[in-house]
Amino acid sequence: MSFGPVIDELIESLRVLPGVGQKTAQRMTMQLLESNRLGAERLSRALIDAVERIGRCQSCRNFSESERCRICEDPQRDPGLLCVVESPSDLLAIEQSQHYRGYYFVLAGSISPIDGRGPEEIGLPALMDRVASGEVKELILATNPTIEGEATAHYIAETLSKREVLVTRLAHGIPLGGELGFVDGGTLSHAFTGRSPVRND
Amino acid sequence: MSFGPVIDELIESLRVLPGVGQKTAQRMTMQLLESNRLGAERLSRALIDAVERIGRCQSCRNFSESERCRICEDPQRDPGLLCVVESPSDLLAIEQSQHYRGYYFVLAGSISPIDGRGPEEIGLPALMDRVASGEVKELILATNPTIEGEATAHYIAETLSKREVLVTRLAHGIPLGGELGFVDGGTLSHAFTGRSPVRND
Repeated sequence: MSFGPVIDELIESLRVLPGVGQKTAQRMTMQLLESNRLGAERLSRALIDAVERIGRCQSCRNFSESERCRICEDPQRDPGLLCVVESPSDLLAIEQSQHYRGYYFVLAGSISPIDGRGPEEIGLPALMDRVASGEVKELILATNPTIEGEATAHYIAETLSKREVLVTRLAHGIPLGGELGFVDGGTLSHAFTGRSPVRND
Repeated sequence: MSFGPVIDELIESLRVLPGVGQKTAQRMTMQLLESNRLGAERLSRALIDAVERIGRCQSCRNFSESERCRICEDPQRDPGLLCVVESPSDLLAIEQSQHYRGYYFVLAGSISPIDGRGPEEIGLPALMDRVASGEVKELILATNPTIEGEATAHYIAETLSKREVLVTRLAHGIPLGGELGFVDGGTLSHAFTGRSPVRND
């Protein structure tokens, strides 16, 4: 059953959204056409606006509407701290935890020779220039705990080993609210290696 | 944390989609901007195309790109059967079950005086005209099993009681794959009332 090419194309297009399959796309299409055509128009405009106007910050490679993003333009942050992430979504996750108050550098993913991504492709030269400028005191590696992410972190730490900058890595361990029985062996090993004395404050 | 008004507007607009909350909308936005800008453009075009080009079929009120929809233009169907549904999504569900091979009439919802929807608002006069033309032998009421849907079915059956047309209602009962323990009392009552003798074929 098909309502015709226009509706079929809308259903198919909605499937570009992560987590949206055929059934969900159909339901979305019906709901938009039946009762929210204004919402559909608004979404259409927002999509094309974002595609046309969102570029990358010249300084940190985060998503930005202007040459420099809001974070790089924020003078309240600690210029000595630079956190390296693999993508804008990782940056967003860190920002939403509201703990970190330094600046960021967003790589274009992680080093993965098999996918043709070397240090240059993911933007490491620009990161090195930024560190070379001397303002950064601590470089916090927040790449993902995957093989590629670890390799990328290792590569950056190696490259900067001769420089006057402290390179740190986010702690690995048991997530809050996690149950030990469900935590994988690698994480448990990290949690043991990184254990800390209990303080009686 | 905000990336700026353009991205915020995209996140907000995605929430018009049913089942999409703040977190999902954020994830969709990041994924589209990071790795599927072509998909985002395509979706934007498909949305505006659908809003501008999808109207209602003049004959059955289903969604259609042309004056008459594909179903009404299909000569293979039984002209004696007319199935009344509340919305195009209900029609889609019936079509996908691939059992029914007659025509449809799509109401604009169900009668609901409290929401200001009477027989005229939901398009019953057009349905009556269609029945009066004499081609329809059986009118199958497939409105939803809600109070409003039942009231609408009852109203239609009453109005047509003097006419030479068989008016039927979809069977209510235990859904396939359903467990008796999870079936509500009303459905169970219907299942008892509508019980049928077991045939040994």
